[in-house]
Amino acid sequence: MTAGHTELAVSRRCRALPVSPIRRLAPLADEAKRRGRRIIHLNIGQPDLQAPPSVAESIAGAAGRHLAYAPSRGLPEALDAWVTYYRHHGIEVEPGDIVITSGASEALSLAMIATCDPGDEILIPEPFYAPYQGTTAVAGLQLRTVPLGPGFTPPSPEAIRAAITPKTRAILICSPNNPTGTVYSREDLLALGEIVRETGIFLLSDETYREIVFDGPPAPSALSIPGLDDHVVVIDSISKRFNACGMRIGTIVSRNPAVMTAVADLAELRLAVPVIEQLAIAEALSAPEPYISTVVETYRQRVDALVTALSRIEGVTCHRPGGGFYVIAQLPVDDSEQFAAWLLRDFHVDGEAVMVTPMSDFYVTPGRGQDEIRLACVFDPETLTRAAGILEAGLAAYPSRRNA
Amino acid sequence: MTAGHTELAVSRRCRALPVSPIRRLAPLADEAKRRGRRIIHLNIGQPDLQAPPSVAESIAGAAGRHLAYAPSRGLPEALDAWVTYYRHHGIEVEPGDIVITSGASEALSLAMIATCDPGDEILIPEPFYAPYQGTTAVAGLQLRTVPLGPGFTPPSPEAIRAAITPKTRAILICSPNNPTGTVYSREDLLALGEIVRETGIFLLSDETYREIVFDGPPAPSALSIPGLDDHVVVIDSISKRFNACGMRIGTIVSRNPAVMTAVADLAELRLAVPVIEQLAIAEALSAPEPYISTVVETYRQRVDALVTALSRIEGVTCHRPGGGFYVIAQLPVDDSEQFAAWLLRDFHVDGEAVMVTPMSDFYVTPGRGQDEIRLACVFDPETLTRAAGILEAGLAAYPSRRNA
Repeated sequence: MTAGHTELAVSRRCRALPVSPIRRLAPLADEAKRRGRRIIHLNIGQPDLQAPPSVAESIAGAAGRHLAYAPSRGLPEALDAWVTYYRHHGIEVEPGDIVITSGASEALSLAMIATCDPGDEILIPEPFYAPYQGTTAVAGLQLRTVPLGPGFTPPSPEAIRAAITPKTRAILICSPNNPTGTVYSREDLLALGEIVRETGIFLLSDETYREIVFDGPPAPSALSIPGLDDHVVVIDSISKRFNACGMRIGTIVSRNPAVMTAVADLAELRLAVPVIEQLAIAEALSAPEPYISTVVETYRQRVDALVTALSRIEGVTCHRPGGGFYVIAQLPVDDSEQFAAWLLRDFHVDGEAVMVTPMSDFYVTPGRGQDEIRLACVFDPETLTRAAGILEAGLAAYPSRRNA
Repeated sequence: MTAGHTELAVSRRCRALPVSPIRRLAPLADEAKRRGRRIIHLNIGQPDLQAPPSVAESIAGAAGRHLAYAPSRGLPEALDAWVTYYRHHGIEVEPGDIVITSGASEALSLAMIATCDPGDEILIPEPFYAPYQGTTAVAGLQLRTVPLGPGFTPPSPEAIRAAITPKTRAILICSPNNPTGTVYSREDLLALGEIVRETGIFLLSDETYREIVFDGPPAPSALSIPGLDDHVVVIDSISKRFNACGMRIGTIVSRNPAVMTAVADLAELRLAVPVIEQLAIAEALSAPEPYISTVVETYRQRVDALVTALSRIEGVTCHRPGGGFYVIAQLPVDDSEQFAAWLLRDFHVDGEAVMVTPMSDFYVTPGRGQDEIRLACVFDPETLTRAAGILEAGLAAYPSRRNA
C-alpha cells in the first residue's frame, strides 16, 4: 500500500455524497458575472431582509466581552429566550428540553445521530430540502421516501404507513416545507402522531419556517400534539424568520429526556456555540411585533407576485405555496438543470440573468422533478416579476423547449 | 412495538458514548458553590486572558452588517488571513487548501469523516484529549492507541509501526499535546511521515496549541514536512492562542485536493460558520507581536509556578510540559476521580476548593491514568500556587491517601 504519487483516496462515504446542483451551477454563475452579467439569485434562501435592530445592538454591546466557552447546551439567556418564545406560541418547554445548535443543520444532524443507528431507515416525504440527503448519508442512515400528495399536500396516513418498515426509526417532516411550501395542519400532525406512537418511532420535525404561513396562523408545531413527548424532536432556527442566516443559531427541542441527554453528549464533543450570537438571539427571539408579521406579509406579497407572473407564462405550471418562501414551477423543458445552466451561460435580458435551482436533487426517486425548478422569493415583487419576465423570454428562446 | 409509557430509546451509538469526567463532577462543583465555596477551576482549558483588542473592534464594527450566509468553505477574508498566518510560520498554503470550521472540534470531526469509513481504525497516542474518544465513536471509527514514551515523549517509530494494522486509515497526533504537553520535534514528524507514506495512511495533526511552546520556537507543523501533501490534514483553532474559545473558529488544512473537496462537501451540509467571528479572526490572526509571545511567556510562568509548587508536595510526581498549558500530576491516590470528587464535596481551605480533571478518561487502556490528574494553567501564578497548596492540604487530609 504505497501512496507514491497517487492521491490518497478519501472515505467511500464522502465519495458517495451527492454533489449539490448549486455547486454544479456556481461556476457558470461566476463565469457570467465575469462577462458583466447581473444575476438575480433566486437559487438560494438567503433573505435580503434585516434582522431585528436589537440584534445589531446586542452584538455591538457584547463586542468587548471575554470570549469564553458557552455551556455545551447553550447560554442560559439563550435557552430562556427560546422557552419564552415557545410559550408565546402556546408551547410549554423547559430549558432542559433545549440545546442550542449551529443552525438547523447541526440540529438535524444531532437529532439523526441521537435517534438512529447506522443502517436504520429514516422516512422523508419527497421532494425534500436537498441537503437532507447528505446529512442522512453522513449519519449512516438509509433514506426512504414517501411522495407528497397532489399539489404538494402532506402524504396520506396510508401512504406513510405503507412506507414504514421494521427498520424505520424516524420520520422527518419539514413544515412549512422547503421547497414545496406544504404546511402540515393539526390534523396532519395528529395522524402522524398516531403512526409514530403505534410504530414506536421518532418524529423529527423541521420547523425553521414556522411563522411564514400565508393563510392563517403559524404552522402548528409537533410539540403541540399531546401524547408525543417521547417521540417528537423539533429542529428549529432563527435564520429565516429573523433574517440572520449568518448567525448560525438553531435549536433542538424534545421532551424526551433520554434524547436530550444524548444530544447534550454529542453537543459536548463540539464544546459550544459562539457566545456573541447566543446573546443576540435572546434579543431576536423577543423582537416585538410587528417584526415577524411584517416579514410574513413581505413574503406573502412576494410569493403572490411571483406566482402571478409565472402563471401567465405559457407552458408553466406553478403552485402557490402555503408557507415558506419558495415557489416551485414546472417548466416546458425535459431537463431543468440543463435549462438552468443555459440561462446562466447563454441568456440575458438587458444584461440581466436569473439563477434558479433545478428540483431533481430534491428528489431521490429517479426521474422525478426533471422539469421543475425552485425559486426563492428573496427580492422585492418588482425584481421577482422582472425575473419571471427573463424566465419567460428564456423559455421562448430556449432551443430545447418542449413542444406543447 | 408500542412505546406506551416506556421512553423511546436513543441510538445505541449515543448510549455507548463515554460520559466525560467533567460531566460527572460538575454537579458536585455546583453543589459546593451553593454551599458558598469559591472554586478554582483547574479542570477546563478556558483561558482567562483577553483576545487581541482588534477582535472587539472588528465585532463592534460588524454589528450592523447584513447577517448573510458566508460561503461554506469560509469568508475570503478569513481564508486569506489563515494563508498569511501560515506564511508567517514558513508554511505555504492556498485558500483552496483551507476550510473554516466551528472550532478545532468540527475540524477534527470533518477530518475523520473525510478520511475514514465506519469500521476503519484510527491510531492515537495515549493519553489523548478525552473528547477524541467520542468524536471517533460518532464517526464510526475504531480507536487504537499506542502509549507515549517515558516522560510523555512521542511514541517511538517502532511502537507506531507495531500498532498499525491493515485496517488503520489514519494516525491522529496533537502537538503541543493536550493533556501531556508533548511537543513533536521535526525529527519526530519526519519519522511519522515515513510511516504514513509507507503504509499509505493519513496523518491528522491537531496543532491547536502551536505557538505555546516553552523551550524554543513554535511546534513544527506537519504541513512543513516535505513529501506529505497527500497525507497531512491539519486541525487548527484560534481558541487557545488568541484567547477566543467562545468564538468557535477553527480550520482544517490539507494540500490533498480530494480531502479538501470532501471536507467542502461536508461543510456544505452545515451551510456556513458565523460571519461576525470569521471577520474578527481575520484581525486576530494578524495580531501584531508581542501578543502571542506575551501569551506564551504568561503560560511559561504559570506552568513553572505550578510545577514548582506541585513538585514540593510529598508523594506527588509532576512532569514539566514542553508546551500547551496543562500540567499532569501523579498523586498518591488509587482513584483520582474519587479524590477529585472528595476535593469538591469534603474539602476546602478558607472556603476555597479546587476542581481538577481525573486523567483516566484520557486513556482507553484500562487501569491507566488512575492516579493522575490534569491541571489547566488558566490563572495567575499566585492563584496556581494557592491551588497547589489546597491540593497539598487535601492530600494530607484525604482518608484514602495511598501510603508511601
